[in-house]
Amino acid sequence: MDKNILNQYSVLGLPASSNVRNAQYPQILPDSRVIFKTKAPQAKQVQIDLGKKYDMEIDDEGFWTVTTDSITEGFHYYSLVIDGVAVADPASESFYGMGRMASGIEIPFKGDGYYSIKDVPHGEIGMKHYYSKVTNSWRRFFIYMPPGYDKDSTKEYPTLYLLHGGGEDERGWANQGRTDLILDNLITEEKASPMLVVMMDGNFPGRGGLANFNEEVLKIFENELKNEVIPFVENNYRTKSDGESRALAGLSMGGLQTLYAGIKNTDMFANLGVFSSGWFANKPDLSKPQYAFMEQNKEKINSNLTHFFISMGGKEDIAYENCQVMLKKFDAMGIKYEYSEYPGGHSWPVWRHDLHKFAQLIFKN
Amino acid sequence: MDKNILNQYSVLGLPASSNVRNAQYPQILPDSRVIFKTKAPQAKQVQIDLGKKYDMEIDDEGFWTVTTDSITEGFHYYSLVIDGVAVADPASESFYGMGRMASGIEIPFKGDGYYSIKDVPHGEIGMKHYYSKVTNSWRRFFIYMPPGYDKDSTKEYPTLYLLHGGGEDERGWANQGRTDLILDNLITEEKASPMLVVMMDGNFPGRGGLANFNEEVLKIFENELKNEVIPFVENNYRTKSDGESRALAGLSMGGLQTLYAGIKNTDMFANLGVFSSGWFANKPDLSKPQYAFMEQNKEKINSNLTHFFISMGGKEDIAYENCQVMLKKFDAMGIKYEYSEYPGGHSWPVWRHDLHKFAQLIFKN
Repeated sequence: MDKNILNQYSVLGLPASSNVRNAQYPQILPDSRVIFKTKAPQAKQVQIDLGKKYDMEIDDEGFWTVTTDSITEGFHYYSLVIDGVAVADPASESFYGMGRMASGIEIPFKGDGYYSIKDVPHGEIGMKHYYSKVTNSWRRFFIYMPPGYDKDSTKEYPTLYLLHGGGEDERGWANQGRTDLILDNLITEEKASPMLVVMMDGNFPGRGGLANFNEEVLKIFENELKNEVIPFVENNYRTKSDGESRALAGLSMGGLQTLYAGIKNTDMFANLGVFSSGWFANKPDLSKPQYAFMEQNKEKINSNLTHFFISMGGKEDIAYENCQVMLKKFDAMGIKYEYSEYPGGHSWPVWRHDLHKFAQLIFKN
Repeated sequence: MDKNILNQYSVLGLPASSNVRNAQYPQILPDSRVIFKTKAPQAKQVQIDLGKKYDMEIDDEGFWTVTTDSITEGFHYYSLVIDGVAVADPASESFYGMGRMASGIEIPFKGDGYYSIKDVPHGEIGMKHYYSKVTNSWRRFFIYMPPGYDKDSTKEYPTLYLLHGGGEDERGWANQGRTDLILDNLITEEKASPMLVVMMDGNFPGRGGLANFNEEVLKIFENELKNEVIPFVENNYRTKSDGESRALAGLSMGGLQTLYAGIKNTDMFANLGVFSSGWFANKPDLSKPQYAFMEQNKEKINSNLTHFFISMGGKEDIAYENCQVMLKKFDAMGIKYEYSEYPGGHSWPVWRHDLHKFAQLIFKN
């Protein structure tokens, strides 16, 4: 029997929805294990890095394959590692993450598919250039406009400013996050209020990774948000501009930016969402002034904030310990917050879930 | 002297604007040669493929480098080839082209930078989902809305339907093509009329590359364009809906789609743009019925078309011979057209130029 015919029928998997057109691999098995396959006859070693590294094995025709463990529902970054070099897999779509264009794989739903594309009214994501006097450069944001935004030119909307993580950029929530589909579905079910969602670029020159993360870059971020992005958005889109109608949220690095700029400006933002984040327990230079500010202003903070939502991707989240230390400080000070835990670690399945939950809390009055 | 300090000062190049954040390579020298550099200590062979393949050389620390020939202004696809596997370079942004996420490098302007971001009013590119009954699936288009589109809710706009090439998708013109910046600049200078530009997905199931390109998939495309995309756009955006206010244009495969659906529907489109394309001279099965249709309808075609713009990336364009054969047929039939040639071959610098030229011709009445 022809070997190709055998191959054709010996696999029960289906190509991932995150594959590029016509790519047959990666394939996802019914139990959410994934078969990866890459042609590299001259390579000495090929691996798949999904956080956990999997060694691939080569066949006579130069194809390397491996079947992974079962992977949880939703979006996961991964790399193909060819002779020690981590690159994007040519068989998959790429996404800006880990500071470069990385591969992503979408594992099908076990749950109800709250971020799937459904037969509901769809909003639109716009890409907008603006000039920042803070950075003296052109920058870009993405903005989700809910269904019907373009129909009624008098209606004004509340606005969620939504921040990506380190190594990502303004594309994170629009692509990896599926913000538009999550909101389209929630708005249709009347579980969330129609809102604008602004996905800005939270990266600033001079920052070289979280190791160099300090109050100076947080101040630049706050300046950009308050003096460039919000005025531009409120001048160019139909927004409500009271604190109750603004929310600020972010994941990981974006959670720190939210903690910093949100807590300092609770008169501007009545709703804060901090996903998989927390002040570094081992960086008192950064965190001590924040806690001191909160201690001094706790009545104002508690009174201004309608929702202070803090979430964690379970104990396996790399930010878990920092977050717990921070929450103990909040408790000691009497700072009020809502805490949510969802398993999955420091990953996009958790952050999609967090957005889905946070969007249902805010803008309800 | 410390070797790192020497390295720091021994290079006159600047990181390309298409690099991912903080990536120091590729670097572009003043004469537009490019230095590529990649760490791959375990690899046996590393190359850069820019159409021409360049062998890289490894140093003691495992860095592979090469300096290319001088590269022409604008956007070029390239691959990093590690031990024979062509992948995207982790140091650069990726773009969907060649049927996968490929690297792109942006070579700085020699000319006036008509596609650079300038201090002019900026439109917006929207990403829109729609359900196609033709393909029974959700599809996506990008739409450029000119500056001011959201300000005056009564104004209607002419619309250019703009098609990508083979191995690309709806992202091609929005990202690689810089359609928004080209139009923003032209509209500000009053060289082009404010217009909508719809960048649809021209790929359809079952097509396996240009080798399988046939009338059946062209019919599916025509059906999708006429019965799904145009009605959706005209119902959801403020468009003028007469033939004079519609244009259809495309590059390479998109040029064939324009030749097919545009010529058959000159009552719907008074303006056609065919960039780097032409009916295959060696595929009479496909081209003969098209020429027969044109022969039968030449008076109508000539009378309906205000602009039939055909362009070529010089003699080095892979479509050059097909195009010349086609133009001779047109001449013999008496079909009127405008022909433009711009050097650069079958490449994005040529197609950006073609859009820049075509957009100035259309919608002038």
